[in-house]
Amino acid sequence: MPVRLTGLKHSTCSMRVLITLEEKGVNDFDFQEIDMAAGEHKSPEFVEKNPFGQIPVLEDGDLTIFESRAICRYLESKYKGQGATLMPSPSDIKATAVFEQWASAELTHFDAMISSIYYQTTIRKLQGLESVPEILAENIKSLSANLDVYDTILGRQKYMAGDEFSLVDIFFVPYTNRTFKMGLGNMVTDRPHLKMWWETVSSRPSLKKWST
Amino acid sequence: MPVRLTGLKHSTCSMRVLITLEEKGVNDFDFQEIDMAAGEHKSPEFVEKNPFGQIPVLEDGDLTIFESRAICRYLESKYKGQGATLMPSPSDIKATAVFEQWASAELTHFDAMISSIYYQTTIRKLQGLESVPEILAENIKSLSANLDVYDTILGRQKYMAGDEFSLVDIFFVPYTNRTFKMGLGNMVTDRPHLKMWWETVSSRPSLKKWST
Repeated sequence: MPVRLTGLKHSTCSMRVLITLEEKGVNDFDFQEIDMAAGEHKSPEFVEKNPFGQIPVLEDGDLTIFESRAICRYLESKYKGQGATLMPSPSDIKATAVFEQWASAELTHFDAMISSIYYQTTIRKLQGLESVPEILAENIKSLSANLDVYDTILGRQKYMAGDEFSLVDIFFVPYTNRTFKMGLGNMVTDRPHLKMWWETVSSRPSLKKWST
Repeated sequence: MPVRLTGLKHSTCSMRVLITLEEKGVNDFDFQEIDMAAGEHKSPEFVEKNPFGQIPVLEDGDLTIFESRAICRYLESKYKGQGATLMPSPSDIKATAVFEQWASAELTHFDAMISSIYYQTTIRKLQGLESVPEILAENIKSLSANLDVYDTILGRQKYMAGDEFSLVDIFFVPYTNRTFKMGLGNMVTDRPHLKMWWETVSSRPSLKKWST
């Protein structure tokens, strides 16, 4: 039975999973798009799967998991040896430690700020609300400082977790892409190593297919 | 040669690592406290170890890693079979998927908000600055909604990643403790299952020793 993904093609978090499936060469998955406008993600049936009422959710037989990054990690383990290798082997504990360092940094030094910026500039607009200038300014300031550091890091290593493409690059993709849609693309293109990373990563077939 | 931890006893992120070392029964580590007031964490020597200029950093022979959660994961692997078991075995890919789901949720549904609240209420005060009311209000609102969900979750499972104590509980410890110091302890104690979880977790010797 194929794995079932419940999400939305254009949602940032679903995109991480769709790109991972493509990188692993998994084509026979069941993709259920949800009607968020109708509140399907807050229905009792859906909240049973994810108590936070958010997409995506993956179901594989008796396993139901949420949180996009956890789903991507699971797919890497389930389809180990198939498609691209996106994580070090757990038996290599030092390589795993380095991977985990960069995976954690994506959440604390990138996602924490950019997801707030996206919420302020995009989601609130969809809800007919103005952005809160103080929140936007604080997050842009923090993110800019962190992207300066990432630009230095990417001058030393080709990808976000070292010299090989990995899940950490995929974790960065949706919101990096959205910076351009938010009119903040210069945060990427003004930094030469970050710009080169994005050109390299966004040329991959998996991103051409799923990154929107 | 013992592992070397550079950090600060009273820093939230260092605390995660110190508690993990205690849970693993590791007593022979070299703990280097840093003088943050003197800016040691922004020195060229330290930034070479962590380009973000933040503590803690762990050194083990030729391995240098930052990001507290990544360090805790590494210690669990290095000292596997010693002290408490804090993560499922990587060979159990379904149990690992569930662990990763809860580990990711700690960052996206707890840390993202509480670290901002702590910065606003505590760090800015140390810097002689007022908190920004809009940022504080937004984060308290989001965190409250998420803690309601955690209260439901902890009515179904004893710990943050299932029925066993794990690294995910340790990840929650420093900022849960700080809610009380920030005058926001009712966010924990008003929620019965969350309150019970905190009573259970904070009674462990590792927290009695290192949670401040």
